[in-house]
Amino acid sequence: MYPDSLKNLIESFKYLPGIGEKTAERLAFAVLNLDDEQVDLFSESLKMVKYKIHSCSVCNTLTENEICYVCSDITRDNRILCVVEDTKNVFLFEKLGMFKGVYHVLNGLISPLDGINPEDIGIDKLLDRITNGNFNEIIFAFKPSIEGETTALYIKKILSDMDIVVTRLASGVPIGADMEYIDSLTLERALKDRKKIE
Amino acid sequence: MYPDSLKNLIESFKYLPGIGEKTAERLAFAVLNLDDEQVDLFSESLKMVKYKIHSCSVCNTLTENEICYVCSDITRDNRILCVVEDTKNVFLFEKLGMFKGVYHVLNGLISPLDGINPEDIGIDKLLDRITNGNFNEIIFAFKPSIEGETTALYIKKILSDMDIVVTRLASGVPIGADMEYIDSLTLERALKDRKKIE
Repeated sequence: MYPDSLKNLIESFKYLPGIGEKTAERLAFAVLNLDDEQVDLFSESLKMVKYKIHSCSVCNTLTENEICYVCSDITRDNRILCVVEDTKNVFLFEKLGMFKGVYHVLNGLISPLDGINPEDIGIDKLLDRITNGNFNEIIFAFKPSIEGETTALYIKKILSDMDIVVTRLASGVPIGADMEYIDSLTLERALKDRKKIE
Repeated sequence: MYPDSLKNLIESFKYLPGIGEKTAERLAFAVLNLDDEQVDLFSESLKMVKYKIHSCSVCNTLTENEICYVCSDITRDNRILCVVEDTKNVFLFEKLGMFKGVYHVLNGLISPLDGINPEDIGIDKLLDRITNGNFNEIIFAFKPSIEGETTALYIKKILSDMDIVVTRLASGVPIGADMEYIDSLTLERALKDRKKIE
């Protein structure tokens, strides 16, 4: 009933998470109202993202080059390593702009219940990098969860005979949050990790 | 900070209505997980929609051909014309599958307050088609609103000396609706247009 190209575009939008029939139709019709240049860029960047982007050979961050722009930036501090569970988190920290060290992206977190073991998330590559590197601090920037704790503890144990400080992000009450909406685990952690006001 | 292609894709998603920064980022990252074929189809259909789709020369419905599939279908009843305000509504009726007549798509509705006059919505083309056609019924399938009423009355007045039945969609309480949520104008119309149970 729809012209073929419109039908294909609707189907394409439906491949994306959280987009159903109605939204896909709305978006496909909206494409008709875009400028030629916008559609060309959209069409082109879809292919580029799929075919040009891959993992940085050093840290696994998504990049279009052999080595990502953080790893190839000589002004970054190569002694502080921030380990994240997903490449998206690198971009979160970079947007913040206050971290001057380097990153390492794991392929998720250890989760024995889901059958995800250390070798599945690329820990070997991380350990190789740490062993051959000159790091004096490793920061685990995982989400506060059993999987995050497990992964951090597992790696920390392996590194225990190396002279490296191992840290994790602070957990606690988010800035601006209403106290009544904070879950009990977060509150417990916030109380345990309370800081002296100086 | 993002690789260029990813940044371009995020910008592209943001062109679409209702998609902000966060959603655009989420969708762009999701593209990385699509199959090659899916991305190729997506990319291709974007261009196709933009460059192949245009208005049917008879009825203005979106089509990839000179004449849309309804207008070129000889089994359709060329004596009943359903006039809609937007091409999307043609597809709504076609999905329903019970209307066997033909369509005419206006470019919106008359709205003097918004400076939209009869000539802006392509009424001339509609009148030409009716004058040269063999219609015995014109159905106005506009949304129930002042603009819809104005447009219907305007066209009906011009057609008043022709032997054509002019109808509009029934208005009333939607099937399955809770009575308490029906607005007063709809309820008023439903009461006025009440049907005898036979």
